[in-house]
Amino acid sequence: MNPHLYAVILAGGSGTRFWPLSRSLYPKQLLRIIGEETLIQQTMRRVLRCVSPTRVLISTTPLQADSIRYQLGEWKDELRDNFIVEPEGRNTAPAIALAATELVRRDPEAVMLVLPADHVIKGNRRFQTSVSLSVDLAKQGRLVTFGVPPVRPETGYGYIQPNRRIRLGTRSGLVGYPVARFVEKPDVRTAGRYLKSGNYYWNSGIFVWRAATILSEIERYQPVLARAMHKIGRLGEGMTVSGAFAQWYRRVPSVSIDNGVMERSARAAVIPVDFLWSDVGNWSSLEEVARRNEAGNVVSGNVVDMDSHDSILYADRRLVATIGLSDMVVVDTQDATLVCPKSRAQDVKKIVEVLKKREAPEQLEHRTVFRPWGSYTVLEEGPGYKVKRVTVNPKGRLSLQLHHQRSEHWVVIAGTARVTCGRRRFNLQVGQSTGIPRNTPHRLENPGSDPLHIIEVQDGPYLGEDDIVRLQDDYGRRVEGKKQVRK
Amino acid sequence: MNPHLYAVILAGGSGTRFWPLSRSLYPKQLLRIIGEETLIQQTMRRVLRCVSPTRVLISTTPLQADSIRYQLGEWKDELRDNFIVEPEGRNTAPAIALAATELVRRDPEAVMLVLPADHVIKGNRRFQTSVSLSVDLAKQGRLVTFGVPPVRPETGYGYIQPNRRIRLGTRSGLVGYPVARFVEKPDVRTAGRYLKSGNYYWNSGIFVWRAATILSEIERYQPVLARAMHKIGRLGEGMTVSGAFAQWYRRVPSVSIDNGVMERSARAAVIPVDFLWSDVGNWSSLEEVARRNEAGNVVSGNVVDMDSHDSILYADRRLVATIGLSDMVVVDTQDATLVCPKSRAQDVKKIVEVLKKREAPEQLEHRTVFRPWGSYTVLEEGPGYKVKRVTVNPKGRLSLQLHHQRSEHWVVIAGTARVTCGRRRFNLQVGQSTGIPRNTPHRLENPGSDPLHIIEVQDGPYLGEDDIVRLQDDYGRRVEGKKQVRK
Repeated sequence: MNPHLYAVILAGGSGTRFWPLSRSLYPKQLLRIIGEETLIQQTMRRVLRCVSPTRVLISTTPLQADSIRYQLGEWKDELRDNFIVEPEGRNTAPAIALAATELVRRDPEAVMLVLPADHVIKGNRRFQTSVSLSVDLAKQGRLVTFGVPPVRPETGYGYIQPNRRIRLGTRSGLVGYPVARFVEKPDVRTAGRYLKSGNYYWNSGIFVWRAATILSEIERYQPVLARAMHKIGRLGEGMTVSGAFAQWYRRVPSVSIDNGVMERSARAAVIPVDFLWSDVGNWSSLEEVARRNEAGNVVSGNVVDMDSHDSILYADRRLVATIGLSDMVVVDTQDATLVCPKSRAQDVKKIVEVLKKREAPEQLEHRTVFRPWGSYTVLEEGPGYKVKRVTVNPKGRLSLQLHHQRSEHWVVIAGTARVTCGRRRFNLQVGQSTGIPRNTPHRLENPGSDPLHIIEVQDGPYLGEDDIVRLQDDYGRRVEGKKQVRK
Repeated sequence: MNPHLYAVILAGGSGTRFWPLSRSLYPKQLLRIIGEETLIQQTMRRVLRCVSPTRVLISTTPLQADSIRYQLGEWKDELRDNFIVEPEGRNTAPAIALAATELVRRDPEAVMLVLPADHVIKGNRRFQTSVSLSVDLAKQGRLVTFGVPPVRPETGYGYIQPNRRIRLGTRSGLVGYPVARFVEKPDVRTAGRYLKSGNYYWNSGIFVWRAATILSEIERYQPVLARAMHKIGRLGEGMTVSGAFAQWYRRVPSVSIDNGVMERSARAAVIPVDFLWSDVGNWSSLEEVARRNEAGNVVSGNVVDMDSHDSILYADRRLVATIGLSDMVVVDTQDATLVCPKSRAQDVKKIVEVLKKREAPEQLEHRTVFRPWGSYTVLEEGPGYKVKRVTVNPKGRLSLQLHHQRSEHWVVIAGTARVTCGRRRFNLQVGQSTGIPRNTPHRLENPGSDPLHIIEVQDGPYLGEDDIVRLQDDYGRRVEGKKQVRK
């Protein structure tokens, strides 16, 4: 396509409305909500119709970077230098400013396709056509948004009215217009009028512009943000999360690109698109995009149902049995279950707030946690012990580390383990085991080409993940006695 | 109380209507449905108001005997010789005949209080008074049933009409009458009429009679059963489940005591009782007996609710979040979850039938399985491996055993383990571990006075519980090369 086109995937969202499938540390973009791949994997594949993987930037936060790297492992090498890790989420304008700054550095002519990692789009060809047209408009100096024809009087979205008297460009039946006006979250009557009029579009949050254009518009409408960006640029640290960068970033105003720039700019344009789009904002919105069976149910996983209809029934490996439900949501995960009527799906975030107040682990993360070297699943925790299944990817290895408070026992259940324990190094095959005393430097490594699985039994008075002293790490994580560098 | 009174607790039921809390191998009587104790524990405590523990017989089947012994461990010594283990469940008449035969052998004057293990009764004093009166009637040669005043036009129960013209006895306001007639499961109009009339009582399934009386009535009305009992009696094997006993028992007619004897006998009597009784036949019937909160919900376990009312919300340690439910049943266990409207609670058994056809493990037993020496919980199973937490009671020990197909690794997480592995014997403390190669005789033992907990990791091509060769066992379980003797 265009040799100056880049994609920026915004993958910093936290999103609690898909709890218990989503967690604070495991947001919607990481979920396999619909289809075989997760939303961020689907988004990646979508943008690869327009750009090569080396031209995709991932904008995210430290808490999610590992999980995203894991899910996008197929493009590990191409994406190596393309993670823009914000020290913390500050809404879309700072994230976009950061990405635009980096892109201008790489290519002064860069055109950015900006899109959230957690939307569902069906009709990838028409998406591609829309991007082509938007690039034409971007080269004219336009800030282009994709406008989605509304299908219901939604009050939670922004609406865009095009100025149809001016056609900025056209491709395969698609037309780009200047924006006549933006309307943020109208009331239900106004939304109904917009829906009827056929002249308003939902703001999809997908944008295309020249990196230089958006930076100059940010300069004009968000001077505080622009100054902070200049300062950060002068730190000359690239995309690493150093102390100074984090300090500056914390002072950046938290503002959305819509509110902060688009609604004010004279350059805004809209392309009414014709692909199916959904931001799958909560469980009940799944129905817009997921396959329903004859009874109108969206069913996933190990569900045994009798006589239910128009319900969303999500299980994983555990068994969920349902009888005679109508318009209900049932979502089951390894450690938590949600049951509510579809009409209450938007209140799931209130449950998550309650859980946060209680510091319930079930809002924070799943029993399975992804790391750059693989993943682990907590099978059970009890007084003085914890049992995990640990998976190490081929050629992956954990940091060289030690624990002050716990000893560990490892039993290999699949693959080959290379173990460092004190001064000894040895291999363990399936069915072999070893013990790691406390205060002993140790490392687990997968020398093979198949995944390594072990069962780890920990015992000790304190078993928190933070009882870890890293002595060496392949993934740029904090190592004892060295400056923290995060890749 | 009466020096000849004995209690017989019928604990052979299978009961699938409380799935997923109940399982085929873990029926309702073993559940902590209401209160701190399980139903059979509550039943045991109830009869101990009337008899000493050495006078309580437990009638059950081989599949449940271990779990019941475990739950009634408080009276382990007193109950040692009081388990009547039917080779298989054959309805109530054979179980009662077996118990009566044994009681007559022990005490020709024996009076039996027969009661199911899985009913809920509130008002233990009035229960005790009812038993006192029933013993008076039993000594007159009566077959006494406890009649419960109906509170709804239930069509699933049998009804009893007393002959109020004859008073057989009276105590503290209670009166015993001859039975005028039994009506089995009337239609809803008839049930409504009975309810209104005030002259019909639910058949509670609780009976009192002299053992000799019920045997002679069985002789009269169930001659085939009586003959089989004589044959079994002549085997002279007491209560052990030998091959010949099992063979005879299999030929015994499967008939209920109500249908087979009570409805035919001229000796039937009824005492209208005034304690609260429920057979808690399914999840929705819990409301009759369990405490409801202000919103009318019956809540148990780790539930976070918002705005639900009149619902039954049962969790265990896993988190269950509910929003805006009305008249729903949500039951969550370690490996399975049920969601249905209260009005469909009786269809839970259909779900269990579906699961049985699929041979789903979730209908058969829980992840936690009780054994005479303690219990184990399956934490995870996967291809080629299984992880268990094993608990051994103080001074308990597993059989000396070996496995052909799997090796095992044990890590002690609490207590002290005495391990036999081949010719070696040694102790392991918390944090120590050992490996058991396949085909190696081994034994796990708790020499201490606190429970022993270990994590066991198994690996091998086949990990079924039946890959076990027992070489010695403390609990009378089948041992290789010896005749099977079940205690």
